[in-house]
Amino acid sequence: MPYIRETILTTASADGVVHIAPLGIIQDGEDWVIAPFRPSTTLANIEATGVAVVNYTDEAKIFAGCLTGRRDWPVRPVEGCPVPRLEAALSHDVLQVVSVTGDATRPRFRCRVAASGQHRPYQGMNRAKAAVLEAAILVSRLKMLPAEKIENEIAYLKIAIDKTAGPDEEQAWYWLLEKVIDHLAEIEPDAPTP
Amino acid sequence: MPYIRETILTTASADGVVHIAPLGIIQDGEDWVIAPFRPSTTLANIEATGVAVVNYTDEAKIFAGCLTGRRDWPVRPVEGCPVPRLEAALSHDVLQVVSVTGDATRPRFRCRVAASGQHRPYQGMNRAKAAVLEAAILVSRLKMLPAEKIENEIAYLKIAIDKTAGPDEEQAWYWLLEKVIDHLAEIEPDAPTP
Repeated sequence: MPYIRETILTTASADGVVHIAPLGIIQDGEDWVIAPFRPSTTLANIEATGVAVVNYTDEAKIFAGCLTGRRDWPVRPVEGCPVPRLEAALSHDVLQVVSVTGDATRPRFRCRVAASGQHRPYQGMNRAKAAVLEAAILVSRLKMLPAEKIENEIAYLKIAIDKTAGPDEEQAWYWLLEKVIDHLAEIEPDAPTP
Repeated sequence: MPYIRETILTTASADGVVHIAPLGIIQDGEDWVIAPFRPSTTLANIEATGVAVVNYTDEAKIFAGCLTGRRDWPVRPVEGCPVPRLEAALSHDVLQVVSVTGDATRPRFRCRVAASGQHRPYQGMNRAKAAVLEAAILVSRLKMLPAEKIENEIAYLKIAIDKTAGPDEEQAWYWLLEKVIDHLAEIEPDAPTP
């Protein structure tokens, strides 16, 4: 399988309305493939403008926030680009679409890096940030998973949260946990909450 | 629990012999605590010089390499500091010891950031890099864990490797997997390898 960067993508409509969404971009030689599902605002925006900004951030609250209805993160203009970047981006790439492989459910936009920017220093890996990212992916797939798998995965990820999280990662974790608990209560009304 | 950054620490002996080791540094207000186990080269070097360089990198091969006898990573001098940084560091902090809490097995060095440098742009989270970090921690604790827990954790982490690793993360994963397989063969000679 190809290398995948987990990023926050900013896109804009033809009218300039900005959209923020987490998305894994897929390496393809020197290029990167963006493959959003249809229908989605990200997809419509890329079709309209042919450009997206990939924000490289490890801020757990942004990944968890986007999965729990908290999409309003501060942005900053990028010179020469119709799409802004996240204020929180440590660095960013402006991706320009160079070709499209059509598909009824998941078209693939092959993109080239048109410009880049570096904004803040990276401050090291953190197990809790990675656990929040895994939990965010879990939350995006709750309806496809059996309750036992969800419970086991949350129990495993919680170890890194308990051992290495700061206040931001704890907040992100609880946003996601609320979603998980609501989902489990819906499918298993009589079970104790985790 | 406090926030922990997973880093690669460079230290040097009084004679200038450089040592490279993975270490989690523990946040304590504005300061960072380094708590290496006794005996260790990192501990002896910090006692001798009172300084360490914290390298912020997400390069999976360095974390996995340090756990599997591959400690010889390129370094670069840091101006005004007796200890070099990793060539691969995206950024670094020079930590100066400000106080020590003695302990027979694990003294705590409270450190202040004396200088910082930013070298390369961060390029986003990657699930395989995080899985390699978790596997590296697992490998460091093999002798304390039952075989079943080791096998389950490897099976879980392998999902992110299969889905998102590039060649570097795959190489790092196999270095660690070799250690795991050797260990399991030793404690369970008749079991099939994972």
